[in-house]
Amino acid sequence: MNAEELFRNIQRKKSFLCVGLDTDYKKIPRMLLDLEYPIFEFNKHIIDATAELAVAYKPNLAFYESMGAAGYISLEMTISYLRQTYPDVFVIADAKRGDIGNTSRLYARAYFNTLDCDAITLSPYMGYDSIAPFLEVEDRWAVLLALTSNEGSADFQQIETKNGLQLYEQVIITSAGWGTVNNTMYVVGATKATELQHIRTLIPEHFLLVPGVGSQGGSLYDVAEYGMNDRCGLLVNASRSIIYADGTNKFERAARDQASILQKQMEVALKNRNLL
Amino acid sequence: MNAEELFRNIQRKKSFLCVGLDTDYKKIPRMLLDLEYPIFEFNKHIIDATAELAVAYKPNLAFYESMGAAGYISLEMTISYLRQTYPDVFVIADAKRGDIGNTSRLYARAYFNTLDCDAITLSPYMGYDSIAPFLEVEDRWAVLLALTSNEGSADFQQIETKNGLQLYEQVIITSAGWGTVNNTMYVVGATKATELQHIRTLIPEHFLLVPGVGSQGGSLYDVAEYGMNDRCGLLVNASRSIIYADGTNKFERAARDQASILQKQMEVALKNRNLL
Repeated sequence: MNAEELFRNIQRKKSFLCVGLDTDYKKIPRMLLDLEYPIFEFNKHIIDATAELAVAYKPNLAFYESMGAAGYISLEMTISYLRQTYPDVFVIADAKRGDIGNTSRLYARAYFNTLDCDAITLSPYMGYDSIAPFLEVEDRWAVLLALTSNEGSADFQQIETKNGLQLYEQVIITSAGWGTVNNTMYVVGATKATELQHIRTLIPEHFLLVPGVGSQGGSLYDVAEYGMNDRCGLLVNASRSIIYADGTNKFERAARDQASILQKQMEVALKNRNLL
Repeated sequence: MNAEELFRNIQRKKSFLCVGLDTDYKKIPRMLLDLEYPIFEFNKHIIDATAELAVAYKPNLAFYESMGAAGYISLEMTISYLRQTYPDVFVIADAKRGDIGNTSRLYARAYFNTLDCDAITLSPYMGYDSIAPFLEVEDRWAVLLALTSNEGSADFQQIETKNGLQLYEQVIITSAGWGTVNNTMYVVGATKATELQHIRTLIPEHFLLVPGVGSQGGSLYDVAEYGMNDRCGLLVNASRSIIYADGTNKFERAARDQASILQKQMEVALKNRNLL
């Protein structure tokens, strides 16, 4: 999927919502635990309940890896279900990978070929050859960490370099030259709304993946105000506030309701920008 | 395992060799491909052939993830085999993970509990709370990327910051305060021998994980000369030069021979330093 197709999906669904599948077996409704693949079953219900309202899904690999091979099977089943049932949704492996070239090539194989995801999140620390293998696969995306939503982002991402830039700015400026607006996105936390405005001056056209709305406290209003461009240019992720909105057998309805609240706010933001 | 126990294993085996299990089904001897778990079978043979000569093994997660759930099962079998058969070896998950706190906590569960590894490699880009969950588990290690062996390490790791330090130096100085010499190591590429000498002035006591000897061209002599401290303080990794030393049914013997060459050089280096 390229940026134009992603934008068309956003216009059609009047939404730039990404649902984070941070699925923890300790938090899913107990009645699912007797099934053979409870993690997959939970995801399937969440996806069915929210697919009209979301343009993207983002399984967080840590949650699946924490369950070993069984978790990995649930991940494969989830992505396969998304691909077959909702072929227009954008699937992001939230994996934060990045390694020397020949290893990153294997990660690209893992997430673009074996798992058939559209995109993968990557840490830029190891530089160009750690990212390049992901940019070589047509219609697939590298989503680079730039300025994240957590407290620790101040430790290194916001260090000032000799030339007066903060590290995350240098990461954006340097890496924007590696790919194109059709294969590179950046992670910018929703808790960093003022920086978002500044980042738009560095990369006006790129899509941004924005986590941190909901449980982490970021404001969707601010994100849209400071981050939206003329092809929307935003995927805003919510995970826990949607998928764990209710812990009983009403979890699907509650997830849909929470996704719907965000979708309606997104529809207003898109209209305000004359994008619908 | 703490630093003292690791050093005692190094003295006993006269070796600070780590064997990298970068196992690619495209490169293993063809006769293994008919078995149910060829990746595990290959690893088992490599481990049996080299276990007297190596103190650590380092499966590279990308290679297993590229095969999906089947790869993950082979990884679990490999680590389980190591744990049961050679309980004194140090097992490093080469995963390059790192995410916001609640996600890193799940990665810690995945690699320290579910998979029972001693250590995991981590990218420091997201800062303190992305690393802290790994430091909270007793006798397990966070291995932080500092200065890697690839070309791209110059892109960001060697950027000069306002206070005159390169980013990797700032990463080392800041993160050394997060843990102890018993739960924190650093990745420093063997291709960076001059920097290794400088890094020893910053962290004289920490263990360093040094990849890049062998296929990547780093010199074991230089690494020992510039990086060794009075508890050795080095784990030097070789992957392809050992495990793919021969592509026929003589691969075990060839792997053992290559590991033995490195072990003998390491024994000399340890003796020169009066550590044996």
